[in-house]
Order: sequence, then structure tokens, then C-alpha cells
Amino acid sequence: MTQLRVALAQVDTTVGDLAANADLVSAWAGRAVRAGAHLVAFPEMTLTGYPAEDLVLRRSFAQASRAAVDRLARRLADEGAGELAVVVGYLDSSRNPTPRLGRPAGEPQNAAAVLWRGEVAARYAKHHLPNYGVFDEFRYFVPGYDFPVLRLHGVDVGLTICEDLWQDGGPVAVARAAAVGLLVCINGSPYERGKAFQRDELAAARAREAGAALAYVNLVGGQDELVFDGGSLVVDADGRTLARAEQFTETLLTVDLDLPAGALVAGAPVAGPVVTGPVDAGDGTTIAVSRVVLADEPVSPFEAREPTVAQRLDSAAELYAAVVTGTRDYVRKNGFASVVLGLSGGIDSALVATIAVDALGAARVHTVAMPSVHSSAGSVADAAELARRTGVTHTVVPIQPVVDAFHDALAGTGGLAGLAAENLQARVRGTLLMALSNAHGHLVLTTGNKSELATGFSTLYGDSAGGFAPIKDVPKTLVWELARWRNAQAPRDGEAPPIPEEIIVKPPSAELAPGQLDSDRLPDYSTLDAVLDDYVERDQGRTELITAGHDPDTVERVIRLADLAEYKRRQNPPGPKVTSKAFGRDRRLPITSHWRERTGSPPAVEPSPRPDSVTP
Amino acid sequence: MTQLRVALAQVDTTVGDLAANADLVSAWAGRAVRAGAHLVAFPEMTLTGYPAEDLVLRRSFAQASRAAVDRLARRLADEGAGELAVVVGYLDSSRNPTPRLGRPAGEPQNAAAVLWRGEVAARYAKHHLPNYGVFDEFRYFVPGYDFPVLRLHGVDVGLTICEDLWQDGGPVAVARAAAVGLLVCINGSPYERGKAFQRDELAAARAREAGAALAYVNLVGGQDELVFDGGSLVVDADGRTLARAEQFTETLLTVDLDLPAGALVAGAPVAGPVVTGPVDAGDGTTIAVSRVVLADEPVSPFEAREPTVAQRLDSAAELYAAVVTGTRDYVRKNGFASVVLGLSGGIDSALVATIAVDALGAARVHTVAMPSVHSSAGSVADAAELARRTGVTHTVVPIQPVVDAFHDALAGTGGLAGLAAENLQARVRGTLLMALSNAHGHLVLTTGNKSELATGFSTLYGDSAGGFAPIKDVPKTLVWELARWRNAQAPRDGEAPPIPEEIIVKPPSAELAPGQLDSDRLPDYSTLDAVLDDYVERDQGRTELITAGHDPDTVERVIRLADLAEYKRRQNPPGPKVTSKAFGRDRRLPITSHWRERTGSPPAVEPSPRPDSVTP
Repeated sequence: MTQLRVALAQVDTTVGDLAANADLVSAWAGRAVRAGAHLVAFPEMTLTGYPAEDLVLRRSFAQASRAAVDRLARRLADEGAGELAVVVGYLDSSRNPTPRLGRPAGEPQNAAAVLWRGEVAARYAKHHLPNYGVFDEFRYFVPGYDFPVLRLHGVDVGLTICEDLWQDGGPVAVARAAAVGLLVCINGSPYERGKAFQRDELAAARAREAGAALAYVNLVGGQDELVFDGGSLVVDADGRTLARAEQFTETLLTVDLDLPAGALVAGAPVAGPVVTGPVDAGDGTTIAVSRVVLADEPVSPFEAREPTVAQRLDSAAELYAAVVTGTRDYVRKNGFASVVLGLSGGIDSALVATIAVDALGAARVHTVAMPSVHSSAGSVADAAELARRTGVTHTVVPIQPVVDAFHDALAGTGGLAGLAAENLQARVRGTLLMALSNAHGHLVLTTGNKSELATGFSTLYGDSAGGFAPIKDVPKTLVWELARWRNAQAPRDGEAPPIPEEIIVKPPSAELAPGQLDSDRLPDYSTLDAVLDDYVERDQGRTELITAGHDPDTVERVIRLADLAEYKRRQNPPGPKVTSKAFGRDRRLPITSHWRERTGSPPAVEPSPRPDSVTP
Repeated sequence: MTQLRVALAQVDTTVGDLAANADLVSAWAGRAVRAGAHLVAFPEMTLTGYPAEDLVLRRSFAQASRAAVDRLARRLADEGAGELAVVVGYLDSSRNPTPRLGRPAGEPQNAAAVLWRGEVAARYAKHHLPNYGVFDEFRYFVPGYDFPVLRLHGVDVGLTICEDLWQDGGPVAVARAAAVGLLVCINGSPYERGKAFQRDELAAARAREAGAALAYVNLVGGQDELVFDGGSLVVDADGRTLARAEQFTETLLTVDLDLPAGALVAGAPVAGPVVTGPVDAGDGTTIAVSRVVLADEPVSPFEAREPTVAQRLDSAAELYAAVVTGTRDYVRKNGFASVVLGLSGGIDSALVATIAVDALGAARVHTVAMPSVHSSAGSVADAAELARRTGVTHTVVPIQPVVDAFHDALAGTGGLAGLAAENLQARVRGTLLMALSNAHGHLVLTTGNKSELATGFSTLYGDSAGGFAPIKDVPKTLVWELARWRNAQAPRDGEAPPIPEEIIVKPPSAELAPGQLDSDRLPDYSTLDAVLDDYVERDQGRTELITAGHDPDTVERVIRLADLAEYKRRQNPPGPKVTSKAFGRDRRLPITSHWRERTGSPPAVEPSPRPDSVTP
């Protein structure tokens, strides 16, 4: 066995900022050098940020990425990191292009480079491309069919990228055939509730399959709707966890490994046959193994240190961290200094305000109460109390004179009543927030939750107006859970709970009409969320939902609402994705669709108020 | 040679309405029977509508589609169409599922069924799946590897679906090997400017490759952002056009063909070897040929009729028809009876009003002038004149009192000036239109053009508020061209030109501040549109744009505007797509991106007003 100190740089990159991302690599490679590491790995698409979407199809961007990786290799050597093997993700292009209709222009590849002594010593292109959920990689990349094995201080090291681990066959199978001692996997694996556990299990299983230790480095931070949680880890060839990084934070995870020496080292134990050339990858393709010697000699024996093995966060802590991270990075990376949101006195806006304060600090959070004649005195007071506890800047702007001016302007057209009058109030509030945003440069945060979005229970250009929607993927029942969880954390940190108990216990109401309650129009939220979870996340149809035990009338009602709400979901601002099927780019239903799950075959045309109403 | 009368049913299906689509097939199959046809083909995914997006992943929907096709076969026989071979598109599922991560759930297939004598006599699944531009078919379908050859009245007939024709190798190559006499291709090929010509060329080339006549049937109508133009055609084995249907209209194109008899018919000329079993498809895959005999005996000789060979529309007529069709179908299929839009007195809203009248009739079009203190008297008068000429219902709602009420409400926050005050006016107008929509059930049409959208020259929740955006993919220079074209048509139809000349010749202005002109903030539109075309449609980078002859300062300015406008584009309502890269689901740029084409490597954070301002 021979030793290696391996470091995983769990960092937060920025899409498109090649220079800043190169600086990030330089800084963290420096830390790895100072930590005595022999190899450091950075997340998927380090230099370009991930996912760069259609930017990868732009020739100028691909050229800039290729130039940046070459420049970075020289820079690292100049900065004293030439003897550190640095694995960085970047955008490359196929070396053997076969242009054809439907293949992405320029044949981009999602690649990893090994930087060593001032040069790019090896390149690996992702073999398995995900094209489901949030991923569209068949649009963007052509797969790689090469597997370079790097001899680093006597150890044979293989490379993989994210999806390569999730699918059967491919590089993991080739890693075993090529008898690598260490498999490095660089990732951009987005957070989803419960996925960290699944990822740990996967890493262990693939390490056993490869017969090699596995070093798994993941991105942290937010990018539009995606949140990356980090949770980088190292497992040994038997799948035992040796080290694990904290989630949602930039960190360098270092671990000292005892690894089998590769077969070419004279006198060392032979790990396996020295395979080169084509190998059956077990997935219907052939992958060519090549050998690259960085350094043949083992390092001098050193005393191994105890690595970090962070606990995974519990479910509520993890979810809260995800929405805080997504919000913080969206605001920061888009260059906003502050945010503004409407505080109604209800639970949704209270939670969003708390998230904003935790993400940005109270000094950068502005809240506005915009009471109407339908707002209760309790709501106004509760909003003010929350503002007081969290320390945000709070303003009160009564909306009635503006609402009245609209009614006057439209008096000649027949006037407004019912839903039209309810929506008007929401739109006046949206316009006020956007005016404050334009005047003061705040980003508007919207406060709608997933249960509302799924059922269309919101006003387009009203409460849905804004730049970012922190809880758009959090169902209402979890909104309450997060509020209670956050309050429960406060005493531990020596603070008062930020959210007044009144806000948590009051029955939810949009307060757009006298005595209105959400329960007038929607089923009880625990019932609603259970049906939505099966309908949206599990794609169950009406019959399956009823068979699963949901009340048939509720099923009819919920799927009717959900089927009519697609238009509004498409028009909503981005927000952090925390479940497998957030409403956003990964869920793609036609707006114009006459499929009605509740009947299987609808009336030919059903009047649809979908672009407009509070509730369909 | 043996005769066949082939009919192509160029129809407008509705996504999700299996029952209505089956009724459509029944009605048009009846026409084909009465026309004496032996075979009729319907467009891609006839029964489900196209594209059905994520609906295809729902098990209940896939089951309903499979049941519907079986039911339809029996129904057609009951209705006297049993001896007509009916080719319909539908959603099927793989017969040999190999579930794996990343393969679409349930393994859907984009399929064609041949209905004959009450049964599904053969099934074909699309082999080449497009996954670029507006297409995401790797997310939705698994490819087919079977090629049934149907013996119909002595002629061997093969089937293909849309992309099968666009890519090299695959079913076209197999059709030649299998010596079919007629290749039927069913399509859902969206309109793009100039594509009809390209499609004709393609059909001719593939017919020659297959050595067979080619019957190409395309969808017509609008589905969300897509518009299908029809233009169905039949070419002979030498690529000569025999028949062509009019674009943008439902029609039955019939053509009498002389085709080589298949080899199995005793005494008939032998077209080629009778291939069955696996064939090298020339694209790296193998396709299995099977033989299905519907009817071996040739039909009795009949006198051939002269087929329709419609002229392709010229460029302006085609584009105008596309936006009218897209608007009409969006309104109709979503169950709206009427539309409302703001008439500013400018060219964009004038053209949209004219499109709406042509799509729906003047009785269903409502226009509203919403003058402010910055609106010129000319604008108000021009809007009224357009309303008079087109016969729409016109209302005037002055906005100043509402704008003043907002200023009063926000006086305590420091007040509004500059862009914030400009945006406020646009948002008051948007809110008024949505109030009228909610009160009267009108769909709001937005009036923004592609040049504005590309440069972010619009107010989010202001002029971009609405349900459908008829000219969102039409650059400003084409807006003028379409207005002039439409006016020029009117005299031929004995009408006055709908758009007053004043509206066409006046310098464009948003009229949100005193003396404001678009040219204060944007380059001249002909210059702007030329740069945008190269930047957006051709993905050219800064250097390429300058090399192509664009002025460097203009290039810097335009790409700066365009790179900042992505957020607004993502938030805009759907509109008909008429170019290869409309802003919508087929163009996917990250919102959070620090790539700046003008420098290649931006300052780390550049304050971005993108969610808010009229212009960045």
C-alpha cells in the first residue's frame, strides 16, 4: 500500500465568470498545498460554473473555457502548486467531431482536466449524460469514450463526472477493469430532500463495484433554481465512509488514504493487470483506457491525520439551509445589495422574511405591510412584531386610496367585483413592491409556497410579482414545520424566536375579502399536500390516487385546480428547488391541454380563467 | 405499376383531448372514404395532440392513448372506413422495456398505427428522436427499431415519423433496402420562417434516397408557442412534387399514384428483393423489417384526377398567417371568447389589434387606450382611428389619477422618479388590462416585439403582462413590414387599409417621459435587428459579430442589453414562434450568469437591474 493525501475543494462557483472561478481554484489549491495534499479535486464544470445551459453552445464561450484551463495550469505552477495534481471541471469540445443534425453545435463536452506541473496532463469527458429532471445534457454535450488512468505517486487514479456514478456500466466498470486504486468523481449534484442519504449509498456501492476508494466532491451554492449542498465524501474500496464534509458551506475536506500501488511500480504489490486500449464498458459502449504517468515514486510515509466526518443535517435543518443558500446566492450573484418583501402577517411572508434575514442579514432586508380594508388589526400588528424581532426595516403603506383610484378609473367599464376586485388588491401590492425595487434597487422576494402555486391560488402580477421566490418549492405543511424549527433554533443561539406564535397558529387567509379563509377554497393543507405529493412528484393518475387512499372528491378537486394552474407556474419567478419535481424548468406541461385527469377525456373546451384568477 | 389513391388529412389536433381528436379522425376518414381514397394519413401524435410534453410520462395518459387507438380502429370499421388504411399518430409504450435511470418512465414511444378492418394492423415507433431547439424527445420517448412493410393493394408501404426524414440513415435507408413503393411520413413540423422550402427540398431528397414516392402530412394550427403550417405534400420517387396542400388550413390532399407492385404479387413486376429481418440502418443501428399484408390484390384501374399543387405563401403572407393562426388557436383552445389589449397609438399594438381581428373577428376584440400626461394627442387619435377602421370595441381609460394615487402612497418612502416612475405607468396599464380580463373574461394580448424583448426594453408586469404575446418573436423591422403588407392586402379585399399611415411612419416612442423616443436608448432598429439576428439566431460571439461587419460600439451596446434581458424573457407570456430561436422554452440561458460576451470575462459582480427596469 502507498499513501496519498487527497483534498476535496467543495466550493461555490459562478456561472460564466471564468476569471473569478480560476481565482477560486488558485486560492483553494493554495490551501490544499498548505495542507500537504497530493491531489485536490474541484466540482463539475469548475471554470464555467454549472449548469451553464445554452452558453455552452456559444463558440466564444467554449474557446474561452479551453483557453482558461491552459492558463490555469501555468498559473498554478507559477504559484507553487505545480506538484499538486489539480482536477478541475471545464467545458471542452470533442476531439473527433462528427457534425450531424441534432448533435450540439461545436460538440461540447463536460470535461475534467488534470493540471500538473504547469500543463494539462490529462482530460476526461463525462460518459453518462443525464437528460431528465433538471438535466438536459443531451442538448449540450457529446459523451466521452476515453478513460485516462493517472499514475500519481505510484497510485493509479481514475476520473468520473457525476452521472457516471448514477448509471450502470461505463467508467465505474472500466475503473475495475483498469484496476485503479482511487476513483475521483467531480459533481454538480443538486440538493433534493433526502438525496444526501441516497448519494452516500450510491458512493459506497460504486466504490465496491470499482474495487477502489472513491473521492466524491460536490458543488455548494445556488444557481438560479438549483441549490447544491456539497456533502463531499470519501469512501474506501469496501464502501466505508472515511470522511464527509459539512453541507452548504465551502470547505476543504482532506483525507489520508492507504491505496494499493499500481502494477508498474517495480517491487510494489500488483493491484491488477495493466489494461490499456478498448474495454467493454458493460453499457453497450466501448471505452479506451490510456495511461498517464504524473509521478511514479510513492511519497515518503507520513503520519495520517484524523479526517472530518460531518453528520448529515436532519431533514428540517437541511431544507432550511437549502432555501437560505439559494436565496443568498441568487441575490449576491445577481448583484443586488438588498431585498424587499410584503409582510402580510401570515406564515408565508413571515418565514420568507426570516429566511432573508438569515441569508443576508437584517440590514439588507426591507419589509412592507400594505394593509387594505380587509386586513385584520392582528395581521398588521403581527407583521410589525416580526419586523421588530428580526430587526428588518419595516414600512407601512396602506393601499386603499390606490385601490379606490383603480375602481374609479374603471367605473365606466362596469366596475370590478369578486375575483377581479380581489386580484386588483394583490396587483396594487405587487406594483408597490416593484416601484420600491426600481426606486431603491432592492430585489423583490415573493412569498408564495408550493401548495399555492400547484393549485393556482395566487394572483399573476400580484403576489407572484418579484425576482425570486424562496419557498416556491416548499409545501404549506412544511412552511409551518420550518417556522417551528427555526423558532426552536433561536433559544439555542440565545435569541428570541423570530416568528410570533400568533402567526404560526392563525388560520391562513389571503385577506382579500371579508372573513375570507384559505379553507373556503382549498382542502385542509395536510390533505392537499398529500394529494399533491402523489400527483406531482409521483405522477399518479386519478385512479391511482384514489387507490392510494385519497378521498375521491378531494382528488377531483385538487387535480382540477392543479391542471388549471400550469400557466401561472410557467410565469413565476425562479426559486430554490428542493424536491424532485419543482415547478420550473424541470416540469414541462403544455399550457394548452385538454387532458383532464379527473375524467380522462374532457369536454372539448372548458372555459379556463388560468392566466388571471386567484383560484380557478 | 399499380394504382393507389392516397389522402393526407392535414388537421388541427388538440393536446390532451383524445376524444375530440378521435372524432376528428373519424370525420376526416369519412371524407377520405367519400373521396375514394385507399389510404389516409394523419399528422404525428394525432390522438394525443403534439407536443404533449410531460403528459406522456403520466401512466394514465399513456394508457388512455393506447386504449383510444384500439377503440378508434373498431369505430372506423363501424363507420364504413374499414377498407381504408388509416395511419394515425398516437402515444405508445415500448414492448420491450428495459427500465434504467434516465430512460423516460414507462418508456413511451412516439408511434403510428395502421388501422384496417377494425384492428390495429401494424405499429411503427419513431426511430430518430429530435432533442434540440423546441424538441426534447430524449426526455419523453424511447426510439423504435422496427420497420413494418404494409402490403396494400399490391403496393409495399413503409412508415416514418417527422425526424426520421431529417436525420441521415435509419428508416429511409431501410425503406430502400425493403424496396417499398410508397413511404408515408407523418409530421408535427413547426413553422419557421423559410422552413417550408427546406422541407420540400428534404422530401425530394429522401424520396430519391428511398427510391419511393413520399407522402408527407403535416399538422396545422397552434399549440402554445408552436405554430404548425401544414404544407403537406407528395413527391414521386424522383423527387418531383406531385401535390401540395395550402398552408395554415385544414384540408384533405388527395393524389392518385402509380406505384410499383411489391414482389410477392404473382405476375406483377418485381420492385426489389423481399427483405425481412434485421437491416443495417446506416446510422449505427439495426432495424428489423417485417411484412404485413393488408390486401394483396391491386385495385381495379381508375381514372386519375389532377391533384392540388398549392403555391407556397410568400414570406410576409406566411409570417402573418403564422401569427394569426397561433393567436387564434391559443385563444380558442384555452376557452376564451374574447381578447383585450392596450392601444397606444404605436405600431406594435396597431399590428396586434389587426392580427387579433383577423384571428377572431372584430366583435371579439376589445381595445383600451390608457393615456397619461406623456401621451401625445396624435397617439390617442391614431388609436381611435385604428379602432374605427377595424371595428373593434374601443374604450379610453385615462391613467393619471391612478398614477397619482401611487405617487401619494409612496411619498413617505422617498417617492418615485426616472425609470421607477416610467415603469409605474406601464404597470398601472397592465393592472387595468388584467382587471378588465378578470371582470369580463377576456384574454389579455401583450404587444411587445422581439427586438424589445431581446434588449429588455419593456416593463415586467407592465406592458409584458398578459396571456399571449402575438408578436414576441417578430423583430421590429418585420413589424413594419407586416403592417405595410397587411395594409396592401386590404384594397384587394375591397377594404380600407386597417392601420393608419400615421402609425406606420411616426418615430417609435414608449411615451413614458416627456419627448421620449426609442432611439434615445436603442440603436436604429434596422441596425439592432441585424446584430440581434447574428447574436441570437447564429450564436455569434463579439469577435465574430465585429468581423461580420457590425459596428463595434453597437455590438458592445446590443450584447450588453441582450445579456441582461434574460430574466424578463423567461417571465414573458407565450407567443407564436416564427424563427429558429424564439425566446421561450427553446432558448435556455442561465439567469444568473457572469459571462459577458463583450469582454469575455466580466467584473466579478455587475449590479443588474434585470428584473425591474424599462432598460438596463
